[in-house]
Amino acid sequence: MAVNIAVVGATGAVGEEFLRILETRKFPIKELRLLASRRSAGKKMQFRGADYTVQELSKHSFQGIKIALFSAGASISREYVPYAIESGAVCVDNSSAFRMDDDVPLVVPEVNPQEIAKHHGVIANPNCSTIQMVVALKPIHDAARIKRIVVSTYQAVSGAGLKAIDELQKETMSVLSGKEGFKRYLFPHQIAFNVLPQIPQNNAFLSNGYTSEELKMINETKKIMGDNSIRVTATTVRVPVVRGHSESVNVETEKKITAAEVKRLFSKAPGVTLMDDPANQVYPLATNAVGKDDVFVGRIREDESIANGINLWVVSDNLRKGAALNAIQIAEMLLCQTAG
Amino acid sequence: MAVNIAVVGATGAVGEEFLRILETRKFPIKELRLLASRRSAGKKMQFRGADYTVQELSKHSFQGIKIALFSAGASISREYVPYAIESGAVCVDNSSAFRMDDDVPLVVPEVNPQEIAKHHGVIANPNCSTIQMVVALKPIHDAARIKRIVVSTYQAVSGAGLKAIDELQKETMSVLSGKEGFKRYLFPHQIAFNVLPQIPQNNAFLSNGYTSEELKMINETKKIMGDNSIRVTATTVRVPVVRGHSESVNVETEKKITAAEVKRLFSKAPGVTLMDDPANQVYPLATNAVGKDDVFVGRIREDESIANGINLWVVSDNLRKGAALNAIQIAEMLLCQTAG
Repeated sequence: MAVNIAVVGATGAVGEEFLRILETRKFPIKELRLLASRRSAGKKMQFRGADYTVQELSKHSFQGIKIALFSAGASISREYVPYAIESGAVCVDNSSAFRMDDDVPLVVPEVNPQEIAKHHGVIANPNCSTIQMVVALKPIHDAARIKRIVVSTYQAVSGAGLKAIDELQKETMSVLSGKEGFKRYLFPHQIAFNVLPQIPQNNAFLSNGYTSEELKMINETKKIMGDNSIRVTATTVRVPVVRGHSESVNVETEKKITAAEVKRLFSKAPGVTLMDDPANQVYPLATNAVGKDDVFVGRIREDESIANGINLWVVSDNLRKGAALNAIQIAEMLLCQTAG
Repeated sequence: MAVNIAVVGATGAVGEEFLRILETRKFPIKELRLLASRRSAGKKMQFRGADYTVQELSKHSFQGIKIALFSAGASISREYVPYAIESGAVCVDNSSAFRMDDDVPLVVPEVNPQEIAKHHGVIANPNCSTIQMVVALKPIHDAARIKRIVVSTYQAVSGAGLKAIDELQKETMSVLSGKEGFKRYLFPHQIAFNVLPQIPQNNAFLSNGYTSEELKMINETKKIMGDNSIRVTATTVRVPVVRGHSESVNVETEKKITAAEVKRLFSKAPGVTLMDDPANQVYPLATNAVGKDDVFVGRIREDESIANGINLWVVSDNLRKGAALNAIQIAEMLLCQTAG
């Protein structure tokens, strides 16, 4: 049963990925409505071999829409999600606007699909760095109960949008050529050949010294896992990578679990590809994750500094599983529930 | 009192830095002898405005030498340090050859200078990523006793030598230009716009899944701090940065210590520059650490996932404090002790 779909923020990095994934997954679409800001309205985009014209987002944009995929930032979501709901659409929102609201499900289909049915018109898509971590940690939590997580991230610039990719490439070129005078317009410091311990780059730090990205990893992990007793600390860092987030994840569990057991769990976990063959220099890499659906896990080692500890290296395509794919998986489940 | 100095591995990335630092610190040198492999012998290098010719390293290279600075890899050190000692030189060895030997001091002058006097002809310079971490952690350990460290690193390619810098730059150019066919000769995977969770790049993983770099951080930290009860786990990662290692360090202490107290400690700690003004986007950055002597610390936050936890972001120039500078500081202390 094909439905009418709206994509809000169609011309952004995640918007482009929405179209690619809707196409390759043969999502049953009757009408596709591409929405964006006035600046991008009129732009043509391709979908299934046809041209689509991007329309300017307004409160009237959602008439007849069954599912609206939002990825245009929190303030746009806060303003337009209510109109979409009023028009009868269900929204899957990739922004942080509603994620921590008590009556809004925050869903990663491999972890807490049961939450989808509880929605009141909007389902929140978690933060990219959180999604890939919980996909990897869910099997460990089920088997040995996770008590504490210490995570440090290596996040690609595409998490900050298409402009960030452009800035990284241009600044890299400028550094390599030795020319002075490159004008940054997005990042507060050089990102070419450098790492920045601040995500997002334009956001004030919280009074406890954490960034909002770090707080998202802490709070969203508990909500998605449905376990407030999990303790999390995070340091989130931007690296000069175009696409694909990597994460160094240290986990303490209640029950002892060996590295061999963790590898067995991952070999059958949904959405996870085990890549752990160090003898052959096989481990997850951002460049290999690009365009792939799965979360890749490797470098699985027992942490010998505590009784029950595991270290992991977790990599995924931040624009796919970290954003567009996860949202579309949610939309697919919504369709099944409506059909059923 | 000027002395005769030999630099072994003079033409490498650390060797070049030795010369720069000996010059700027006005190290009292009578004769400077530059030594390297046959391949580099005959090469001219500049020091204090004069030309020096690199000589081929042999067992006879150390006659009359008072202090020999070694940075040519562990196998060269294992072979030639005994000849240097036999000739009456004291060796400061930047390789891993002797670091964990019980009768070899492993020294970071800000942390355990008292160990220098105990040498029997060789003093080991620790691993780069360990040096900057212990400089930052020593004041915290003294104030609140560190129980456990979870560290993830963001290490520059220059830690793998001049060839690694060359490969990063050439591969980056190749990726940006979209040309196929770039031939890697050092790293096992693409390092341009990617991160590699394997250091060193050419070294087999240990049976417990760790790399030798990770094991160095674990073992050397305990030895330098003189406290085997400190528990450490590490994930070491290469990032596409030319110079300057960054580290995300999570610390659990026995006594509660606040972020404000930690900042106070750092503001007066030797060898440390506190860079922690998030409101103005001030935090340590690899690009800012290049050519500087200090270890830069920022992003100081209490880790709310445990009772007594602190998160830090620690950055330093891996070729200076992480290698050449630390060795020369040791040599300076050797001179003082001899003079005194």
